[in-house]
Amino acid sequence: MKVDLDRSKEPSLREQICAGIGERIRSGLLRPGEKLPSVRQLARDLGVSLMTAVEAYALLEKRGLVESVQGKGTFVRERSMPVDVAGDPFGWQMAVADYLPRASFWSQSAVRLPPEILDLATASIHHSLLPLPLLEASIESALKKAPQSLGRYAPFQGDPEFLEVVADYLRHQGLPISPHQLIITNGTQQGIDLFARTFLGPEDVLAMEVPAFSGAIDAFRLSHPHIVPVPVDQEGIRVEILEELSTRMRIKAIYVVPTYQNPTGSVMSLKRRRALIEFAVETGALILEDEPHRELTLAGKGSLPPPLKALDPDGRVVYLKGFSKFLFPGLRLGVLAADGTLYRRLLAAKSIVDLGSPLWLQKALVPFFRDPKLPRYIDRLNGILLRRSRQVGDTLAQRLSPAIRWQRPQGGMHLWLTVPPFLDADSLLPEAHRRGIHFLPGSIFYPGEPESNHLRVCWTNLADEELPRALEILCGVLNEAVR
Amino acid sequence: MKVDLDRSKEPSLREQICAGIGERIRSGLLRPGEKLPSVRQLARDLGVSLMTAVEAYALLEKRGLVESVQGKGTFVRERSMPVDVAGDPFGWQMAVADYLPRASFWSQSAVRLPPEILDLATASIHHSLLPLPLLEASIESALKKAPQSLGRYAPFQGDPEFLEVVADYLRHQGLPISPHQLIITNGTQQGIDLFARTFLGPEDVLAMEVPAFSGAIDAFRLSHPHIVPVPVDQEGIRVEILEELSTRMRIKAIYVVPTYQNPTGSVMSLKRRRALIEFAVETGALILEDEPHRELTLAGKGSLPPPLKALDPDGRVVYLKGFSKFLFPGLRLGVLAADGTLYRRLLAAKSIVDLGSPLWLQKALVPFFRDPKLPRYIDRLNGILLRRSRQVGDTLAQRLSPAIRWQRPQGGMHLWLTVPPFLDADSLLPEAHRRGIHFLPGSIFYPGEPESNHLRVCWTNLADEELPRALEILCGVLNEAVR
Repeated sequence: MKVDLDRSKEPSLREQICAGIGERIRSGLLRPGEKLPSVRQLARDLGVSLMTAVEAYALLEKRGLVESVQGKGTFVRERSMPVDVAGDPFGWQMAVADYLPRASFWSQSAVRLPPEILDLATASIHHSLLPLPLLEASIESALKKAPQSLGRYAPFQGDPEFLEVVADYLRHQGLPISPHQLIITNGTQQGIDLFARTFLGPEDVLAMEVPAFSGAIDAFRLSHPHIVPVPVDQEGIRVEILEELSTRMRIKAIYVVPTYQNPTGSVMSLKRRRALIEFAVETGALILEDEPHRELTLAGKGSLPPPLKALDPDGRVVYLKGFSKFLFPGLRLGVLAADGTLYRRLLAAKSIVDLGSPLWLQKALVPFFRDPKLPRYIDRLNGILLRRSRQVGDTLAQRLSPAIRWQRPQGGMHLWLTVPPFLDADSLLPEAHRRGIHFLPGSIFYPGEPESNHLRVCWTNLADEELPRALEILCGVLNEAVR
Repeated sequence: MKVDLDRSKEPSLREQICAGIGERIRSGLLRPGEKLPSVRQLARDLGVSLMTAVEAYALLEKRGLVESVQGKGTFVRERSMPVDVAGDPFGWQMAVADYLPRASFWSQSAVRLPPEILDLATASIHHSLLPLPLLEASIESALKKAPQSLGRYAPFQGDPEFLEVVADYLRHQGLPISPHQLIITNGTQQGIDLFARTFLGPEDVLAMEVPAFSGAIDAFRLSHPHIVPVPVDQEGIRVEILEELSTRMRIKAIYVVPTYQNPTGSVMSLKRRRALIEFAVETGALILEDEPHRELTLAGKGSLPPPLKALDPDGRVVYLKGFSKFLFPGLRLGVLAADGTLYRRLLAAKSIVDLGSPLWLQKALVPFFRDPKLPRYIDRLNGILLRRSRQVGDTLAQRLSPAIRWQRPQGGMHLWLTVPPFLDADSLLPEAHRRGIHFLPGSIFYPGEPESNHLRVCWTNLADEELPRALEILCGVLNEAVR
């Protein structure tokens, strides 16, 4: 087993090992009943003393995460007895070390909910609101016009025709960009991963807004940089904290979702955007801007400040745009924009990891992006979401205890609820499930020490007729917990 | 700039730095005229003395790869003058270190060939021979049956219905496997990358057959393991060399293409397959088996030994199957098979890097894999390739100088030609281009010190009427070089 250790820092090594293994257990990478490596093996894998390994296991046992069985070894704890590894033909595999520090998104998604549970966790738009007829027509048309694309690879950066329609689309969203600055990715998630693998390693510092999208945290952790959490407020990431940090360390890159931040929903002000870029230029940092929600604005496009990439003075901002949220979740294509040698290096990384995204999918989407019905669809969707957001806001304002803090949504898909500090949102889940709803506990949105008195609620995923009941249950569960 | 250094080993650090930067220049990651970091910056990035950095640059200059310009810095060499970085707004980016050691596949594919050049380099089947009508019918049918899949994410491992038809297909190819052992990937390349990221790091040893697919070398290098090349002979990877190596180091994983090896075309014998598995079990090594060509057999399926995965005693073999070569290059889907906790960890990695492959593509391929015309297509394709392979063999036997060694193809898509040791295949490319053909020089198929007197020729990529002329030109270029 591998655990990222920082030998120069507090907390102690045994604490760091305990935290690392704890994260793997919570992620489901280590499952109940599974046998941990022997202390001898662990000490060897991590290059620590036998005593440190023994102390780390003792700490894990004290915290109730593992239990040791005399003469058999140490096992991930569960209610029943440890699995008998002697009868497991794959038992030897536990000794094979890996480099996965955490996989929260995976473990969350692996939660199998009964179909009657109303899902307030998944960040998506209800399928009845997606532009499926436009997509079907687009595919039909591409089948006629470009069947030969079924039999060919795309250039690593993407199909030239598709890059062109995507650049047009982005320009309409306020980002002046040209096709040669773009790389097609398998969704935003791959864009984050490409950036991390290309530029971040164990010696680098990544400043990351917190709370933050848990999938992004997973992807960054996989490249093993030192992650420094920087809080967001109502205007976005707090640049004054970045400035203070930079007196003590060299920040290589900064990750932000400036527009309808996930999960808090905040929008970075224009002033803050300028300050962030100025900070990056002064300190030599890169900025990774992730913008999945710009189109989902309830106050109108004109109300939003431009993307950071549109303010980029010298090719410092790498921009990610996903389309899965409200256009085509089933096709998993996104786009990355960058300049200069950063662009070329990210493109080389894309070529290494999968040789490029499927040509046929790109060709199948060309008519979709050219369809004049697409902007009308987005306007109509925002009309529906505006009505819905009012309903959500009114319900919570009427029903939710004033001890619970939240903000009316301005755009995006989420609400971030803060319960009093004595409450742990994870511990509210069993009762929520019993009554018929699911939400995401806030703890998975932190790369380091989590705050556990938050929860994220997505209000766009349910059908119109399901949402009121789900909100009512949510208010009930939270109000009772607060009392 | 980052370069993987091994401080415990020969050659010297300056030699290692020179080799690492040289590889980046040859890969196109550093381009002619581009400025290298200052020696001071390089020394800091790599944690070496200033003197070592100075010596490394001197060595690069001596080998003609860079030139230093008084008062300006060190530049990647080109015929013209160094680019004036003062006028380049992105010039500062060169100081941003990255973790890409090489991208040969990218640099090869970036070679823009005029359309009249006959391409003997690309490993694919001519589009007229691909099952495009079956694919079109399958997509049409899925548009009717599963339009809602356009609007949904797939489970990280893949769509259950698709996993089932893929498992059926693999069983027909001689691999007894069930859907719950499978993970859908974005082509085999992503499968290699998932394996490397999950299990290989700077402290691990990967034994890799040589020569080997250059895209696989690129993917492994990105995870920075210590790569030990192990030669293949007519029966596959030489297990006795693995045994000898294992007395000196712990081999964590072994990468092989046992069936129609890329690029040599050799088929690992059943005896060797058994010996390889026995070796892995004894030493605790994992095996990554990459099998893109099993179906393309000229002697009939019955003549091939089973996949290593079919002989796997204890979940030690991770198996990769690509479909891009002869079924659907434009869709970029492949599959990975594994067991136990290795399976779960690879699945967690897949969830981290891209949240799963597109659901709609998977649904669109379900009818294709169920179509009784699919096995008939593969048989017909093999009939055509058999005829072709005879034509290729006869032409080379008649026309090529006996000083050039090669073997009649038994399956797969490539020929591996060996010219006398005094010849360098890279240096033959300009003349080949002048006369109208392109091939791959053998040097990119080696993870370490390359052998340069080989070339790979793909005989399945051209149209029937183009192949004879391409072969004639090839024989002409090689025969003249040998004389």
